[in-house]
Amino acid sequence: MDLKAKIPSPTVKRLSLYFRELGERRAVDSDATMSSRQLGDALGFSDAQVRKDLAFVGQLGHPGVGYSVTLLHDNLRRILGRDRSWEAALVGAGNIGRALLSYRRFEVQNFHITRVFDNNPATIGSTISERSVLDISELERELADAGTHLGIIAVPAQDAQAIAERLIGVGVGGILNFAPRRLEVDESVAVLNVDFSLTLEQLAFQVNLGRNDPAREGESS
Amino acid sequence: MDLKAKIPSPTVKRLSLYFRELGERRAVDSDATMSSRQLGDALGFSDAQVRKDLAFVGQLGHPGVGYSVTLLHDNLRRILGRDRSWEAALVGAGNIGRALLSYRRFEVQNFHITRVFDNNPATIGSTISERSVLDISELERELADAGTHLGIIAVPAQDAQAIAERLIGVGVGGILNFAPRRLEVDESVAVLNVDFSLTLEQLAFQVNLGRNDPAREGESS
Repeated sequence: MDLKAKIPSPTVKRLSLYFRELGERRAVDSDATMSSRQLGDALGFSDAQVRKDLAFVGQLGHPGVGYSVTLLHDNLRRILGRDRSWEAALVGAGNIGRALLSYRRFEVQNFHITRVFDNNPATIGSTISERSVLDISELERELADAGTHLGIIAVPAQDAQAIAERLIGVGVGGILNFAPRRLEVDESVAVLNVDFSLTLEQLAFQVNLGRNDPAREGESS
Repeated sequence: MDLKAKIPSPTVKRLSLYFRELGERRAVDSDATMSSRQLGDALGFSDAQVRKDLAFVGQLGHPGVGYSVTLLHDNLRRILGRDRSWEAALVGAGNIGRALLSYRRFEVQNFHITRVFDNNPATIGSTISERSVLDISELERELADAGTHLGIIAVPAQDAQAIAERLIGVGVGGILNFAPRRLEVDESVAVLNVDFSLTLEQLAFQVNLGRNDPAREGESS
């Protein structure tokens, strides 16, 4: 099975949720099995959805027995890249950047924001959540040989594209973009955008229609 | 056509993007027409995708002519609820809350964060981006008759469910949840979750597989 085949984004989101749920179950009982129905019920998905998603990544349960929690958790960990450590560089030490730096779950999940850059002289040299803010002009020198995997862009919209290009120039393979503009990047680079105002628009749209998109489907990230 | 019928989340996201693109085009030339291909090219979608999405909300172009930019923009504005003003209450004046309060695009889009609550005595009474932070104990009194449409939850995970219930209790119809936990709410309430660590997981997954999900598909909000 070719994992590099196109996996739909909603499936990827659900795989992350299954991984979390299995981790919690495993912590309680490492010998447990879970049926697709049990896993679905815990997260509000149908059992058919669960089976379909897991089959996508080659994980098949045993009829009448279900999935071994430990085995499926280990396999999803590997598939999702959670068995390794990820280093990220953050550009932009404003409010969003600060929120990310203080987000304790990242470390637990082996995401490490190892360097923080800003262009504001008042911010450069200051310490935020135990990281010293570096001058953006040092980006290439700092990251050239660092092997940083991910870049996080939390700068104003007009600066985002240039920062993306500089991050890609030092070998960053994935970008999490908080700037409200679309980045033009080579297709070898993965980009995920978080646009608060688009999220709020979607929420307003749902309220406007008086309909509900269940929380899990509205999962925005 | 029943707009309350289930519209997939990715379609909703793209409708928001079409709306923006049309607005920019309209500002330049209010008599313009755009074909589904032109609209798609501007955003990186196929023309078939554009036609399918717009047909979903009853917007049909004219073969050989395309869509009237002004007409389609107006119709999408109404469909997306962008023809009215939205009032939101923010709970949690930490880094994420501050980032949202300083986000200037909200006001432009008629989203107004009218009240901010926190439970930290050091924060209550302070002014952030021109809003005075209110005591969370005042939530019911402040919002009871305010007609607030949306609630934004930016509190620690363990407090999020209780806050959601209090917001719903005063009539909030939609919740934007930044706390990393799933909210249990009545299905009449719309919920969108923004979970940074889930987003980073997805990005890592894409990089791990060495594949690219185009930026637009990875649109996380």
